[in-house]
Amino acid sequence: MKPQAPAVIAAAIGQGVQLATAESLTAGMIAARLAEVPGASAVLRGGVVSYSSDVKRELLKVDAQLLDARGSVDPEVARQMAVGALQACGADLAVSATGVAGPEAHDGKPVGTVYIGWARGAESGSTVHHFVGDRAQIREQSTHAALQQLAAILDKASSQ
Amino acid sequence: MKPQAPAVIAAAIGQGVQLATAESLTAGMIAARLAEVPGASAVLRGGVVSYSSDVKRELLKVDAQLLDARGSVDPEVARQMAVGALQACGADLAVSATGVAGPEAHDGKPVGTVYIGWARGAESGSTVHHFVGDRAQIREQSTHAALQQLAAILDKASSQ
Repeated sequence: MKPQAPAVIAAAIGQGVQLATAESLTAGMIAARLAEVPGASAVLRGGVVSYSSDVKRELLKVDAQLLDARGSVDPEVARQMAVGALQACGADLAVSATGVAGPEAHDGKPVGTVYIGWARGAESGSTVHHFVGDRAQIREQSTHAALQQLAAILDKASSQ
Repeated sequence: MKPQAPAVIAAAIGQGVQLATAESLTAGMIAARLAEVPGASAVLRGGVVSYSSDVKRELLKVDAQLLDARGSVDPEVARQMAVGALQACGADLAVSATGVAGPEAHDGKPVGTVYIGWARGAESGSTVHHFVGDRAQIREQSTHAALQQLAAILDKASSQ
């Protein structure tokens, strides 16, 4: 087990923060990594694997016009995915990942383009990443970046 | 990559079958394994990581009284989780996993008790498994069993 997920779970338990995920290219890897940690059930509510645009719309309430106009690999889509997971799962903090794992470009975006979204209460946002590697490596780096995002938000909260 | 997931994706593509998942103890491992396969997006709609009972109720429409009466590690809960994923994701075939990964027993069920649910159109059911191992091994065996269930249903369909 890598040290990232245990640190996130420990911080979430310490702060009483319930977690949720919304995953496209990682398709469950972020939630699965969190659930590796014994005791994760105290703070991991669940998540949505939104591999198709329909699931992004239906379960995560991502704006349909946005998806039509910009495709699924987009910073605002990532942000809305996180907000959707937060609300759908009744969580306090959510993270999302959408991007191009390859082997082919998608929606006009090159392989390795990944957006990590987050939502914490009424605040939300997303960051862009450009990863290099094969399909497995890009999905692993995306999972790592999402866990880093959770850790950074929890770390910031604990220092306030 | 293990050979199971590629075989499931290839069979689903060949039969035009859209897939969905509902995962408790595996928490995304089944969907993530399917998405390892390049081209999975043609048939993988998505899924729900229903780690908490609330998410089982809200997103997967598992009966609240059933959950209260029997807990989350139950054959009928597994079946309803698969039906819920099928409907929530608009899929043709869904698989689910709920069980006790450990380290402690849960809802009166011993570590290693795992139910794999499935739904294919109007048909659905579940099977019980008793796995031996640590938390990671039980989650891995559950993922394997779920992929086997998908493969068996697709294999049966192709031979009819």
